[in-house]
Amino acid sequence: MKRKGILVVVSGFSGAGKGTLMKNLIKTYDNYALSISMTTRQPRDGEQEGREYFFVSKEAFEEKAGQDGLIEYACYCGNYYGTPKEYVETQLGMGKDVILEIEIQGALKIKKKFPSALLLFVMPPSAEQLKKRLAGRGTETQEVIEKRLHRAVEEAKGIGSYDYIVVNDDLEMCTRELHSIIRAAHSAVARNEEWIENMRQELDVLVKGEK
Amino acid sequence: MKRKGILVVVSGFSGAGKGTLMKNLIKTYDNYALSISMTTRQPRDGEQEGREYFFVSKEAFEEKAGQDGLIEYACYCGNYYGTPKEYVETQLGMGKDVILEIEIQGALKIKKKFPSALLLFVMPPSAEQLKKRLAGRGTETQEVIEKRLHRAVEEAKGIGSYDYIVVNDDLEMCTRELHSIIRAAHSAVARNEEWIENMRQELDVLVKGEK
Repeated sequence: MKRKGILVVVSGFSGAGKGTLMKNLIKTYDNYALSISMTTRQPRDGEQEGREYFFVSKEAFEEKAGQDGLIEYACYCGNYYGTPKEYVETQLGMGKDVILEIEIQGALKIKKKFPSALLLFVMPPSAEQLKKRLAGRGTETQEVIEKRLHRAVEEAKGIGSYDYIVVNDDLEMCTRELHSIIRAAHSAVARNEEWIENMRQELDVLVKGEK
Repeated sequence: MKRKGILVVVSGFSGAGKGTLMKNLIKTYDNYALSISMTTRQPRDGEQEGREYFFVSKEAFEEKAGQDGLIEYACYCGNYYGTPKEYVETQLGMGKDVILEIEIQGALKIKKKFPSALLLFVMPPSAEQLKKRLAGRGTETQEVIEKRLHRAVEEAKGIGSYDYIVVNDDLEMCTRELHSIIRAAHSAVARNEEWIENMRQELDVLVKGEK
């Protein structure tokens, strides 16, 4: 049974610990490739070209989009964000499961374009925990915390479009859980139609041979 | 997050090794309960009351069905087969994942009645392997083998209604795979609507509290 890569979309509230979780997943298992988004926004302190994002000019971004070189893209707060197509397709072809960490609108676009994509939503163990984590960073003003909580309320409305939730309580347990969900997804009937059809034909041939 | 039991329906071709697989799954992990069907057919050599089936009279079966005491039932070759409801509901309520090993028509009835049931189909690694296993038992006539292959061709048409396939090549690997699929199913959005709704309400309260 040839293993085909799955396009895995990961979203979650700001403060749910998505970033750390993704890093740990990729570090722990070798079947994953992390898709890096392209953006026209300025790099922030500590961000590295090709690690957090590919930072490009508005012109370069629009050219890429015009050549159908992005799986999806969107504009937020005056900046473009998009998923380069080539990397995703190459890695999927090699049998890697490709992780896209994107927000909900992007996730829904992906699902429409790639119905076999797997949509995961990372949740904090409780709303109270989410607030604590947001405040706990210590770097955010009360205003920013409130804004993020508001955004979480909005995002929570969209969870119904996702396939699985992953509750991020303990990092290691959650990493295993995430891996287990993605691994199981490889066995979905919808992702093995070719193999099943092949089995049907083999059975037909055998039965005819018996006559 | 309170764990609710999942109703797991397992089907598969005769000779795919379902029985051995189920026994190994239940022996290896403690979160499963195996539902035993009720039938009006005569016990075969080596079959034990309450292990393979509950063997009852036609009258007793019809009484049970009339009292809505069966989740599903059907008549094959003049005998009734059905799934007693009480055991399934008690075990699910205790958080156990309940395994029903039934054929495809029964499986589809279950899915209709319990949309959150998980439908698994056990496959041999290849059609050739299936034939070898059927022949390898040594106890079957050529006629029986042909009949089973024919039946497999028919059953293979219904695989599209299942959620996952499990390829039974190596028993231990397949057991882990099966367990992994069922475990992942607990994280499906569709099986956690109550928890997600609760999170939404908690977030709402928090945001209102911030104002």
